[in-house]
Amino acid sequence: MRFNLRVIIGILGLLLSISGVFMLLCIPFSLYYGEDWLTFIYSSGITLLVGLSCWAFGQKESNKELKKRDGYLVVTLGWLMMAFFGTLPYFFSGSIEFFTDAFFETMSGFTTTGASILTDIEGMPKGVLFWRSLTQWIGGMGIIVLTVAILPILGIGGMQLFVAEAPGIGPEKLKPRIKDTAKRLWLIYISLTTLEMILLMLGGMPFFDAINHSLTTMATGGFSIKQDSIAYYDSAYMQYVMVLFMFLAATNFSITYFGFKGKFRKLWDNEEFRVYLLITGLLSVGIGVTIFLLGGTSAEKAFRDALFQTVSILTTTGFVSADYTQWMPFLTMLFFMLMFIGGSSGSTAGGVKIVRHVILFKNSFLEMKRQLHPSAVIPVRLNHKAINRDITFQVLAFMMIYFLIFALGSIAIALTGVDVMTSIGAAATSLGNIGPGLGSVGPVHNFAHMPDSSKWILSFLMLLGRLELFTVLMLFTPYFWKRA
Amino acid sequence: MRFNLRVIIGILGLLLSISGVFMLLCIPFSLYYGEDWLTFIYSSGITLLVGLSCWAFGQKESNKELKKRDGYLVVTLGWLMMAFFGTLPYFFSGSIEFFTDAFFETMSGFTTTGASILTDIEGMPKGVLFWRSLTQWIGGMGIIVLTVAILPILGIGGMQLFVAEAPGIGPEKLKPRIKDTAKRLWLIYISLTTLEMILLMLGGMPFFDAINHSLTTMATGGFSIKQDSIAYYDSAYMQYVMVLFMFLAATNFSITYFGFKGKFRKLWDNEEFRVYLLITGLLSVGIGVTIFLLGGTSAEKAFRDALFQTVSILTTTGFVSADYTQWMPFLTMLFFMLMFIGGSSGSTAGGVKIVRHVILFKNSFLEMKRQLHPSAVIPVRLNHKAINRDITFQVLAFMMIYFLIFALGSIAIALTGVDVMTSIGAAATSLGNIGPGLGSVGPVHNFAHMPDSSKWILSFLMLLGRLELFTVLMLFTPYFWKRA
Repeated sequence: MRFNLRVIIGILGLLLSISGVFMLLCIPFSLYYGEDWLTFIYSSGITLLVGLSCWAFGQKESNKELKKRDGYLVVTLGWLMMAFFGTLPYFFSGSIEFFTDAFFETMSGFTTTGASILTDIEGMPKGVLFWRSLTQWIGGMGIIVLTVAILPILGIGGMQLFVAEAPGIGPEKLKPRIKDTAKRLWLIYISLTTLEMILLMLGGMPFFDAINHSLTTMATGGFSIKQDSIAYYDSAYMQYVMVLFMFLAATNFSITYFGFKGKFRKLWDNEEFRVYLLITGLLSVGIGVTIFLLGGTSAEKAFRDALFQTVSILTTTGFVSADYTQWMPFLTMLFFMLMFIGGSSGSTAGGVKIVRHVILFKNSFLEMKRQLHPSAVIPVRLNHKAINRDITFQVLAFMMIYFLIFALGSIAIALTGVDVMTSIGAAATSLGNIGPGLGSVGPVHNFAHMPDSSKWILSFLMLLGRLELFTVLMLFTPYFWKRA
Repeated sequence: MRFNLRVIIGILGLLLSISGVFMLLCIPFSLYYGEDWLTFIYSSGITLLVGLSCWAFGQKESNKELKKRDGYLVVTLGWLMMAFFGTLPYFFSGSIEFFTDAFFETMSGFTTTGASILTDIEGMPKGVLFWRSLTQWIGGMGIIVLTVAILPILGIGGMQLFVAEAPGIGPEKLKPRIKDTAKRLWLIYISLTTLEMILLMLGGMPFFDAINHSLTTMATGGFSIKQDSIAYYDSAYMQYVMVLFMFLAATNFSITYFGFKGKFRKLWDNEEFRVYLLITGLLSVGIGVTIFLLGGTSAEKAFRDALFQTVSILTTTGFVSADYTQWMPFLTMLFFMLMFIGGSSGSTAGGVKIVRHVILFKNSFLEMKRQLHPSAVIPVRLNHKAINRDITFQVLAFMMIYFLIFALGSIAIALTGVDVMTSIGAAATSLGNIGPGLGSVGPVHNFAHMPDSSKWILSFLMLLGRLELFTVLMLFTPYFWKRA
């Protein structure tokens, strides 16, 4: 047998079981709001039944080491299974009618994208809304493990690079340390979620709203329990709090950890973080001034709207407090381009990631130096260390494939009969795990009206983007299925 | 002295002198059509005066070898000088009022782009129109030398690769062989131009129209002497002839040479050529069927319109026989993407070039194989030969910089107050040296209404694209100006 199928099934079972347990957390809300709480008993029951059976089936060989090939399969199938079983609460509650829609919504959740097909969010059962927010939060937890533990081993798109920066991880004794690191980062994740909830409640946001928005902020997910997203809350305080936590959620958790420990020097030493701060600052001020000059808003509101939208898109969260497509064509274009930047590596943010852009920029500049001195070895340096040329190569390859998939995805969506603006917006926002796009899937719209076929394509793009492309693409190559 | 300034000035002088001589070729047309022929006496006089003086100044050190650094300077300044002095006939004839417009038109000529600011082409003096076509043809000749002789030495964006394929060029004894090759390729260029002219005249196109369109076809330039471009000629024969020659103009001249010698096997063995044929065939048929199904045209007309527009954009020529932005949004997007492919290497076509895409695709696919077998060396193979990893790296870097400049260019143009669609269309078509864009610079429009500042940006993009980015960008790096 070429794959450790038994082990793979076991792990998938474990993931499903965890998902099943999380479903039970929705029951208190259902009870409190007097809704049909059996929804979650059924959903959780089925998920746990399948999950635990698979887990038990895998136990027999649980000591076997997973091989690299198994890794790709586990990760991709894991996300798919979660999205599949995650649709159950939508069905049992009768809140989403069609499987395509429910799958899209759940995939958008577990991939922390935040694109939604719901047209009457306030009309949904609270318990189901909580499950919807939870899918993003669980997705965020998954991403943290994936980033620190799995992708570096698979060696994807330069992700080895970020491991070196995680606290306490070296190439030797990887396994136990990864466990430690993941736990430490989860602690940060959970603490920040709780902190945000408290701060939002202090500003007057109801408990249910606060917990939901905290879950989806820290996952850089962006699902809101209001149809108008954050524009619903006309509170400068709440919006600034959310900006802060979106920003933190898309900061490398390893350096946030150092920040927690008071080692602020480590933050500033990190080039990706500096660029992240710089982009956020420059764009917010620039866009803020532009909106202010367009007239109709106070300076504070203009700056806040600019800051909120910039951080929301850059961090791939996707909350909306104002419609950026209404400001001016130039800003629409700018926000569209912002979708291709992405948050920091080692965070829950999706997209290309800032560090890859830093490497790309430096390499482009050095490429000219290399032309002048063809025999000299001129490596890209990051955080004062020379980067292995192989990694630079992988980063370049990753970005080209990212753009390629974006182009092919846009064409595919346009072929389902969607207009051009909407097609490219939907493809970019799905691949980047952001949420709002352009045109008829813009910030104040949703994805309900999209053709079914396009929803499947978009779900696939979300999965591709979230799993750093290669994890999924690998399964479509002959190499992967060839006997070693 | 760090640069061989004297030699550089000498070469620039020689280029200007050649340009001055070409200007004289317009006089017969001015005389025949009873126009003011002194325009060209003045223009040529000034150009020759400056050119020959510079040339004489350089003679003293003409035996000195040019260094690599000098090469970048000569090429960039060469194109700039030509564009600068090339504006003279427009001024002396009074046919273009403003310098910005004249410079844009001339740069669009010498870079074989074909974007125009003229709003009444039929109202222009014939002599001036002939000069306008000549600028493209001269530009094409320049590109041939640049590709076979200069860029490979400068080592730009993987261009070394294409040298190996030029007939009779090996790494040793480069200089005399390059001279030979350039002459041979020029002979093909001139022969094909003449042949096209004859074939067009046989189809009933007047001599003046035929010579102008032949000059701009073979340069993959796309300037037409009709405001409606090729849509003016409602002749299937003429349009098919032009399709054939656009296709040839964007085929690697080295393999066309083999074709001339009857070695058809060499053509088929060339991967870039096979992909070029494949893309052309698939898109023409696919788009043709779509247009036919949209209704309103015969099957032949639908196929011809599809073929003509596909070949025109793919080859970066930019002739127009139908407005692709009117067909359907999806096709507009497809044509926009087509602008990023470009013709074959070693031809007069601009853009990214097909061979780079071939390398990119293969590398993307192999990247996954490399992930599975991280210690194996897995090179990209082209024409059955393994490509040096450095070259693959350069190709990736080139493409990323290409997209980067496109993005920054679009933003810059949008900042001048142009709408989004027009901005991205104008940036893409200028950088790719194509001609027509999207929106208000679409196939049936022109660039006259664009803000002056945007015309300068676009002129710069044309130059960047035509000189394979690095030649120009190099001059903006500190490395270049640093003492060795």
